[in-house]
Amino acid sequence: MAHINLGVFVSGGGTNLQAIIDASEADKIDATVVLVISDKEDAYGLERARQHDISAVHVPVGRNESPEYAAADQWHVQLLAEYDVDLVCLAGYMRLIGPEVMTTYAEAILNIHPALLPSFPGTHGQDDAADYGVKVAGCTVHFAWSEFDTGPIIIQAAVPVLPDDDGDSLAARILAQEHKIYPQAIQWYAQDRLHIQDRRVIVDNAPPPTILEAIISPGLEI
Amino acid sequence: MAHINLGVFVSGGGTNLQAIIDASEADKIDATVVLVISDKEDAYGLERARQHDISAVHVPVGRNESPEYAAADQWHVQLLAEYDVDLVCLAGYMRLIGPEVMTTYAEAILNIHPALLPSFPGTHGQDDAADYGVKVAGCTVHFAWSEFDTGPIIIQAAVPVLPDDDGDSLAARILAQEHKIYPQAIQWYAQDRLHIQDRRVIVDNAPPPTILEAIISPGLEI
Repeated sequence: MAHINLGVFVSGGGTNLQAIIDASEADKIDATVVLVISDKEDAYGLERARQHDISAVHVPVGRNESPEYAAADQWHVQLLAEYDVDLVCLAGYMRLIGPEVMTTYAEAILNIHPALLPSFPGTHGQDDAADYGVKVAGCTVHFAWSEFDTGPIIIQAAVPVLPDDDGDSLAARILAQEHKIYPQAIQWYAQDRLHIQDRRVIVDNAPPPTILEAIISPGLEI
Repeated sequence: MAHINLGVFVSGGGTNLQAIIDASEADKIDATVVLVISDKEDAYGLERARQHDISAVHVPVGRNESPEYAAADQWHVQLLAEYDVDLVCLAGYMRLIGPEVMTTYAEAILNIHPALLPSFPGTHGQDDAADYGVKVAGCTVHFAWSEFDTGPIIIQAAVPVLPDDDGDSLAARILAQEHKIYPQAIQWYAQDRLHIQDRRVIVDNAPPPTILEAIISPGLEI
């Protein structure tokens, strides 16, 4: 693909959306955010979109399996078609994507999750990690499957957990990495370099990891 | 504690046992392996023990909840008492430790697991990680609880998964880290620097992680 159109779903502040917009405007990725959709009317992500002259649409979703949910699913598909969206990016979207979007965009929906999946799926990945007491945490960009947080993994970033961390400080450390790996995953998709084999993602000509050694946390004294 | 006695349980080759013996003989840890127990008569770990003049005992275990299993549990406790064992180290021991040992050595049993727990518990951590398609893997030393692979985490090492990895190559990369983190965890225990709060482990004066940045895998191009 030469250049792709992105439709981004947000429920909140949209800092990952901002990272994607920034990467696009800096021509770091062959992709343009053409549409932002939110289930929350007051999601700051919608405001971010408007500030960059990107169409921003509030689509109320209702309860799962309600008529409103099904209608929202249809509306999503119509909007994505209208804006010629090639790739759907979930960026802190707290609802399950409907079956129509899932079918229409099979293997063309990405999600970012603030944990080293399959650890800590769900809506509180960072707090769950802090409470569990892991010494290494991280984030994951993956293809979205209909089941939450389970799809094939494209890229992960691992960070150490420090002794004084709580959920918030850990979330901030993870978020800094989210802003790096999500645009990268989008760029590989735009370059048609991602291939799913079984449930593994092959990245054509994958660059070596940023660090080849191990993160050992806490560190070693002996 | 000044110097502690270790009882190590193995089922197989015992390379982690060897790493612990080596660290002890090099005076890197304030601990001596005084007893090695295996459920398998031909476990090479028993042979390693004998080569270092360490008592090596084959204790057949039978099926879980069988009379033989209960008898083995009693025998374990007797052996550990006889050798004045302070800390039990599970090192590739493929059976569940019995309730008598668990009670007698509450918060004094360590286990090493070849995955970044809570991801991939169970007996095939490395293969499961490779099959799942994670891009970061690792290993964990934790206090053993009666449920497998769930106890409070002392130290973790994260390593990148490379494009050509299979379960074996990934297991080798992880194993190199296991040999570093297990002796370190034992040393902190010997120094009485480990404290469990809720389910987190506080390491007194914890050294900073070996790497403060993130492992991003695959690496970044943008």
